[in-house]
Amino acid sequence: MCRWMAYQGDVVYLESLLFEQEHSLVHQSLSAKKSEVTVNADGFGLGWYDERSEPGLYHEILPAWSDSNLKSLARHIKSGLFFAHVRASTGTATSRSNCHPFSYKNWLFMHNGQVGGYESIRYQLDRLIPESLYGERQGATDSEVIFLLMIANGLEQDPEQAIADTLAQILDLMKQKDIQEPLRFTSVVSNGDEMIAVRFSSDEQAPSLYCKAFDTHIVIGSEPLELSNQGWTLVPAGHLAKIKGNQYQIQALPDLMKLSA
Amino acid sequence: MCRWMAYQGDVVYLESLLFEQEHSLVHQSLSAKKSEVTVNADGFGLGWYDERSEPGLYHEILPAWSDSNLKSLARHIKSGLFFAHVRASTGTATSRSNCHPFSYKNWLFMHNGQVGGYESIRYQLDRLIPESLYGERQGATDSEVIFLLMIANGLEQDPEQAIADTLAQILDLMKQKDIQEPLRFTSVVSNGDEMIAVRFSSDEQAPSLYCKAFDTHIVIGSEPLELSNQGWTLVPAGHLAKIKGNQYQIQALPDLMKLSA
Amino acid sequence: MCRWMAYQGDVVYLESLLFEQEHSLVHQSLSAKKSEVTVNADGFGLGWYDERSEPGLYHEILPAWSDSNLKSLARHIKSGLFFAHVRASTGTATSRSNCHPFSYKNWLFMHNGQVGGYESIRYQLDRLIPESLYGERQGATDSEVIFLLMIANGLEQDPEQAIADTLAQILDLMKQKDIQEPLRFTSVVSNGDEMIAVRFSSDEQAPSLYCKAFDTHIVIGSEPLELSNQGWTLVPAGHLAKIKGNQYQIQALPDLMKLSA
Amino acid sequence: MCRWMAYQGDVVYLESLLFEQEHSLVHQSLSAKKSEVTVNADGFGLGWYDERSEPGLYHEILPAWSDSNLKSLARHIKSGLFFAHVRASTGTATSRSNCHPFSYKNWLFMHNGQVGGYESIRYQLDRLIPESLYGERQGATDSEVIFLLMIANGLEQDPEQAIADTLAQILDLMKQKDIQEPLRFTSVVSNGDEMIAVRFSSDEQAPSLYCKAFDTHIVIGSEPLELSNQGWTLVPAGHLAKIKGNQYQIQALPDLMKLSA
Repeated sequence: MCRWMAYQGDVVYLESLLFEQEHSLVHQSLSAKKSEVTVNADGFGLGWYDERSEPGLYHEILPAWSDSNLKSLARHIKSGLFFAHVRASTGTATSRSNCHPFSYKNWLFMHNGQVGGYESIRYQLDRLIPESLYGERQGATDSEVIFLLMIANGLEQDPEQAIADTLAQILDLMKQKDIQEPLRFTSVVSNGDEMIAVRFSSDEQAPSLYCKAFDTHIVIGSEPLELSNQGWTLVPAGHLAKIKGNQYQIQALPDLMKLSA
Repeated sequence: MCRWMAYQGDVVYLESLLFEQEHSLVHQSLSAKKSEVTVNADGFGLGWYDERSEPGLYHEILPAWSDSNLKSLARHIKSGLFFAHVRASTGTATSRSNCHPFSYKNWLFMHNGQVGGYESIRYQLDRLIPESLYGERQGATDSEVIFLLMIANGLEQDPEQAIADTLAQILDLMKQKDIQEPLRFTSVVSNGDEMIAVRFSSDEQAPSLYCKAFDTHIVIGSEPLELSNQGWTLVPAGHLAKIKGNQYQIQALPDLMKLSA
Repeated sequence: MCRWMAYQGDVVYLESLLFEQEHSLVHQSLSAKKSEVTVNADGFGLGWYDERSEPGLYHEILPAWSDSNLKSLARHIKSGLFFAHVRASTGTATSRSNCHPFSYKNWLFMHNGQVGGYESIRYQLDRLIPESLYGERQGATDSEVIFLLMIANGLEQDPEQAIADTLAQILDLMKQKDIQEPLRFTSVVSNGDEMIAVRFSSDEQAPSLYCKAFDTHIVIGSEPLELSNQGWTLVPAGHLAKIKGNQYQIQALPDLMKLSA
Repeated sequence: MCRWMAYQGDVVYLESLLFEQEHSLVHQSLSAKKSEVTVNADGFGLGWYDERSEPGLYHEILPAWSDSNLKSLARHIKSGLFFAHVRASTGTATSRSNCHPFSYKNWLFMHNGQVGGYESIRYQLDRLIPESLYGERQGATDSEVIFLLMIANGLEQDPEQAIADTLAQILDLMKQKDIQEPLRFTSVVSNGDEMIAVRFSSDEQAPSLYCKAFDTHIVIGSEPLELSNQGWTLVPAGHLAKIKGNQYQIQALPDLMKLSA
């Protein structure tokens, strides 16, 4: 499983979250407590918003802890809304094209989880991408195709519904192929203004999703950034967290009944 | 444009062809004489046959001339049939998944050229890949999809016809989309036993393809490996060269009339 | 030979200099007009000043033109004083440790040129590095050892004299070993406040150094950033350019007579 | 701590040792049982002997488990004496120059351990390298300088004594600087004909070194290649194992009393 964190709040240097926390993502990438795969060394990525219309992106195939560029970039790049992701491949190659976050116009998306039986429905999933978006497909991961389907399903107009519709589409394909493995999906998406994080699984083991409001910012991610969980809210499975300004609210995924059917 | 060479003959160390020729592929990668793009520094690859059932593969995103591993591997790997390719990207990313040669079972394929208007027909091309082969699609290049279509069109049974049918398929799509740019295709494919190299373009400027028989081997490639062209046969456009044992023969592509229509 | 450019002036996005010039450094890296080596594809680097006390750094071993990160970083990083360098190795390995610019505290340094017979005096040069600075030696290049000697010779107190003393030290070693190849050195150094660029060679062929004052900034580099040389001043060999605020002045290197002796 | 294994015996494909063991080095690189550092993802390397006079070398900065080239190379390269190493950096950069094994003429060397207080005696250690060998220094690791000192101390004539003398030299420098951290050194060296593996530490915690004779070959390494330790001999600290043909013998390091003084 991958790990990720997203930050919204006062403008800070990225290093204050990426390196200076006792359980920062870079430290986590070396050893895992709450996830199944030991190491997150199959590439990493950053996405951040600033005054530009589209977010900045940095993808690297080295482990995060050994990339000297990351140390310097995190010391010099400031942002009030940024994403970071460390990858543990579930099969696809370690290449920059397969690193999160993925971007589209002013949107960023990243993901931890897996599409059960992905290799056996990749053909069908790719065929759901409309021609107008097909040029965006750069790699071969499940995460990228999920993001493109979210866009196709109206992410820009109604992100919550687009996410629910995309999960339903994938579950439907999995049912047609009689796939028994689960669809697990803990993700976050942003347009630069607000963030929507989702925790979902078709079985009982949704990957963890933690959220915490600090004085000047909110952090959400696959694991707490502190060794203690104190003050970190575990978002319930089947729910999403909407983060805007200094507030977050947790609500059920739209159409959750349908997804669980 | 990319450059490539293929060798068939007595077993030799790869370095004898890759480094020790006055106009070797590694030297060519630094400066071009006969091709349009100055530098071939967007990744390279090797494929070679030995006693194993499937060929060895080595792909790297560094320029060939600066990869210290290549020097050592070429000094220690021996083969009687091998491919080498230096890439100059026409747009897609520099990643190992996009490096030639591509492989499938005991087959190798590499390519120099371009599908005119590729981005506008990539959607249609990918949809021609049958479900059974779709899992082989790793990157986003035109070369890889051409190879998968060749397999779908019967490469294992009748390679010449499969190549011709694939070119016809692509030209047909290009016509439907009213693409004016040409389809250029200078390639080689092998099953480990024989090689078939093709020189084709839908316009008058097919990328060059040179062939030469030496005492103990045959070399075919996008450029001669000697600064002089002496003894190097330029394969005519619309033709293919079949290389088996110590012999090569040049013949017209099947259905050439149809392709030129 | 390498190529480089340095910018001082109004705060701009790096892309305005790195990509949006008709003869930008990234374009130059693909094909050279004024330098001897065709391609600058053996790594590149950026260094930039912002509000932090020490400069930001980004080093990469891929060719500059094919690094997708560089495109995004250059679109999102702003600076009023920055360095960029594209490398063509004269022998040492392509690794991040060997990429320019080099940094020390608030100082940046980058370089085009070569120490004649470097391999035969590397032993002596490294032994001139004082113990207190030796931990800074990361790679094996001549450029890095030159920078460390400049620091040892008082760069922080009197940069012009430190540069002249360092050149004298190296020339002295070369004389002791009876090296006939020249010492060529076109470089720039900054403390974040001003820049000092030097053009020097022990023979008649000092690598080029061009400078131009625009309305809001000054650019200095190994080549003009425009295809026309109009308005670009060629700094004479044996001279340095001091750039502070919106002004530059050109003067002879200290002790030039001694260096030419 | 790093991990490594060395093989001597019948010619085999490298994959039979690197991938097909239940506790192979590539599996080990993902999770450690007996060593302190969790992950060995800071580069890896191979060295192998064949008919060439000097060994083949392959170094990569990616984690071993995610390098697609390694899978293919290990399937196609055969050897009767080879080294493999997975690195966990104790501070120096992840670059190919810093990856083991190191080579010199027909010699290979690799190492697990650390020179206590290395940064504070690196200056002195580098100055012990004779001028004739100094050109071999490519990186900045303690391992590389140890190997160069071993050569300077007569590795080619009397490897056991050269190793002991080198350890004594380093311990002497550490004593002069009053370094309290230990010198730990579990290594193997070969000339292509025999292997000498050493297990040493100046404190009580020498890194493990296991050896096992199979019917047709001998394996020695930092950990057993089987989950069970059965049949694996733990070489005692302060001892070396000499492996030649199908035999190994364990004996005390020369001058061990002096080293422990």
